[in-house]
Amino acid sequence: MKKLLVFGAGLIGGSLALALKAADASWHVTGLGRSGDSLQEALKLGIIDEAATDLASAVSAADIIMIATPVAQIMPILGQIAPFLNRRTVITDAGSTKADIAAQAQQILGDAASRFVPGHPIAGAEKSGPTAAQASLYQQKNVVLTPGSHTDDDAITAVRAMWLSTGAIVREMSPDAHDTIFAAVSHLPHLLAFALVDELASRPDANQFFEFAASGFRDFTRIAGSSPEMWRDISLANRMALLQELDHYQQALAKLRQHLEQGDAAGLQAIFERASHARNDWAQQQVSASWKN
Amino acid sequence: MKKLLVFGAGLIGGSLALALKAADASWHVTGLGRSGDSLQEALKLGIIDEAATDLASAVSAADIIMIATPVAQIMPILGQIAPFLNRRTVITDAGSTKADIAAQAQQILGDAASRFVPGHPIAGAEKSGPTAAQASLYQQKNVVLTPGSHTDDDAITAVRAMWLSTGAIVREMSPDAHDTIFAAVSHLPHLLAFALVDELASRPDANQFFEFAASGFRDFTRIAGSSPEMWRDISLANRMALLQELDHYQQALAKLRQHLEQGDAAGLQAIFERASHARNDWAQQQVSASWKN
Repeated sequence: MKKLLVFGAGLIGGSLALALKAADASWHVTGLGRSGDSLQEALKLGIIDEAATDLASAVSAADIIMIATPVAQIMPILGQIAPFLNRRTVITDAGSTKADIAAQAQQILGDAASRFVPGHPIAGAEKSGPTAAQASLYQQKNVVLTPGSHTDDDAITAVRAMWLSTGAIVREMSPDAHDTIFAAVSHLPHLLAFALVDELASRPDANQFFEFAASGFRDFTRIAGSSPEMWRDISLANRMALLQELDHYQQALAKLRQHLEQGDAAGLQAIFERASHARNDWAQQQVSASWKN
Repeated sequence: MKKLLVFGAGLIGGSLALALKAADASWHVTGLGRSGDSLQEALKLGIIDEAATDLASAVSAADIIMIATPVAQIMPILGQIAPFLNRRTVITDAGSTKADIAAQAQQILGDAASRFVPGHPIAGAEKSGPTAAQASLYQQKNVVLTPGSHTDDDAITAVRAMWLSTGAIVREMSPDAHDTIFAAVSHLPHLLAFALVDELASRPDANQFFEFAASGFRDFTRIAGSSPEMWRDISLANRMALLQELDHYQQALAKLRQHLEQGDAAGLQAIFERASHARNDWAQQQVSASWKN
């Protein structure tokens, strides 16, 4: 029997539990979480086999501990589990930022930091919570691991094997590379969408604007409907990389504004063309990738 | 028999033709366009009844002329048809910007400007061309008309009746109000998405970024795949309103950057919360509106 202890049995942690058990019936999953209701629901849905009642015994019995909670809870949980870890337990997480965790894990975990393999599964859905969990969530999805030079090879192998068995594609990079990439392709777009909708919503005649918003606006602002707390925490956790991406973007926007102000048709078209080609090429590759399955 | 002459029998003009003929078989639709192939296709699909071979006779025979071409072609077409208009022909268009056209139509059309009712149907789709045309495109969709004080009431009534018969909801406002609203909810989001994708695509290691882009990025950047020429022309045609919206946005972004730089969690959360509530309320209203049908 392989024992997984999961903090947060919602979409991310719950889907991992379901995928592991679908791949190998010898997995036994224990759940721990802030919300008792959520854990009971996960138990009823067969996502977890057991809701832990005692942190110490649950931690010391685990082969792998997955922290699949909002980013701001990961560090406190590492602190809570540290005293009860046995010498072979491997720890991983599913947080959207990695450099902040890498920087503090060593201090919080001490020697056990060598068995902590930070990770980030790139899978999400509109929904959250145990009812949204599904065994197929990670199939053909990227999972990024960001171990350091001090990380045990055995621990990396264990976390890698766990993710591979869910059908995921496992990638490795440094925490900084991870945070730069996701600042650019995920965190910054969220900030830009939040800023647009807030700016519109704060106008006295906001309704007049929203009334005429159509499908382009709907898609562009979909991510502005995301959890404010979650994105506050991600933004702060990845503050340095995000500020840098924001600088790049503000410069790009200033350049575009200049073309517009000067009525520079060729300058505008050049930007729009590069963007349009890049976006359509990317979308085409996404379609090709999904057809390969 | 009511005679419609349509310039551009693609998604917008073709769907209007199909909707009118579905509502009232006495409509006769003549098509005119730059591309002979496209007109022949529209003829084969039953969108138009006739492909015009002579501009002068087609214009003088029309009850209503609809200019459903890209924005940059509307003014030249008004110039071409002006000499052949008969005294009762009503003219309208489907351009995404209105103040520029309002400003120049009087000069181009002379007395006939009183029978020009500028319009903008708020309907679009991923696809374009005659094959994308459908009779139901405008059902429950907004169509904005921007007549001036000099516009004949009869002409407004005719264009209004035409759109109502397609199932559209007809709204009236000034050209400036139109351009401000659409700069904010459509043109600016396009610029922002183009700028983001271009900025990423211009990096030497662009592929590394695109490789990890997921569903949030996909939706946010969908409009960056739009036609560069079309958006160049719309941006320039609505330059003044768009510059103003861009200023508002750059200020909002600078404020957000400041919160981030200072690690101001409450400031970030306040913006994200207002945006998230506004976005989700808007989406909810869209769903309610579509259920009313």
